[in-house]
Amino acid sequence: MDEPQRARRPGGRGARVKAAVHQAVTDLINERGYGEFSVGDVAARAGVADSSVYRRWGSLEALLTDVALTRLNARSPMPDTGTLAGDLHAYAANVAREITGPDGLALLRLAVALSGSGHQGQQAGDDLRAERTRQLQSMLDRARERGENAPDAFDLLDHVLAPMYVRVLFGMGPLTPEYVDGLVDRLL
Amino acid sequence: MDEPQRARRPGGRGARVKAAVHQAVTDLINERGYGEFSVGDVAARAGVADSSVYRRWGSLEALLTDVALTRLNARSPMPDTGTLAGDLHAYAANVAREITGPDGLALLRLAVALSGSGHQGQQAGDDLRAERTRQLQSMLDRARERGENAPDAFDLLDHVLAPMYVRVLFGMGPLTPEYVDGLVDRLL
Repeated sequence: MDEPQRARRPGGRGARVKAAVHQAVTDLINERGYGEFSVGDVAARAGVADSSVYRRWGSLEALLTDVALTRLNARSPMPDTGTLAGDLHAYAANVAREITGPDGLALLRLAVALSGSGHQGQQAGDDLRAERTRQLQSMLDRARERGENAPDAFDLLDHVLAPMYVRVLFGMGPLTPEYVDGLVDRLL
Repeated sequence: MDEPQRARRPGGRGARVKAAVHQAVTDLINERGYGEFSVGDVAARAGVADSSVYRRWGSLEALLTDVALTRLNARSPMPDTGTLAGDLHAYAANVAREITGPDGLALLRLAVALSGSGHQGQQAGDDLRAERTRQLQSMLDRARERGENAPDAFDLLDHVLAPMYVRVLFGMGPLTPEYVDGLVDRLL
């Protein structure tokens, strides 16, 4: 690839490798399930060398963590409805939809399986959780600036996200809109 | 084994096979980690035939679910302190100790990895959760009989157990006594 073309694409080859590798992982999770493929399988599917994967991610577990948390993160944009109640109801509904969607359980289970599984996986997880907490915090800060009485980001995790995660992870039935709204109302 | 001996031991050979197989699974999880051993490895370690494992559990996943949920269940006995607050604080502290103990994270991650992974695993999980809910319910019913205003068993799951599970599963720091007591106080 020549220099002008690289200049037109921010991230360039690195970004394309990342996208191809992430897609390969998602496909392999869907086709075979967690634990049923290797770095070599991912690299072959993505059309890159094994060494590219190891150089960038260090291990299969770190790669899987990166995929799981990037996707969980990217898929629930922060709402900005003008009221805290509106934002929290929309956010909780987004998360519920994402974790009950086609890849949601697989991604949540991956995130769990890999969290703490090694230094690199843990670091990737910590970074993405920190980013997600910053986004939540900015939603809560906006509410405070409007004079609303906003909860702590950790209370949101403990009393809105955690119950939904656990019910999905343990296969305890659907997350109905009434249930999800009830978690938010109780927090507020 | 002769008939009189069987009569003296409730469960007999079945119970001994179950105990040996469960111990073999725990040892293999500790030594190798989840996903790194087969039914054949478990059977060899337990000194039983592969077919005994398949006949009783049907699959490795169903066996792993049974081990995880049996152990998580057996390790947190229901307290009976005479007050709802006392019972809930003791119960939450027991659960926190169990899931932050040496096998706690491995068992929680197993329970998650396997929940919903197939009909038999799901059924084993559902049965054990139903039993656990009955135990919780009887603790809450005792409180109501004493005239106390007790929460719902599902509220206990959502607002005391789920936050602790998620924090342990995602490696988000220790469960301090202040944190655990705070969850219970908030629920009450």
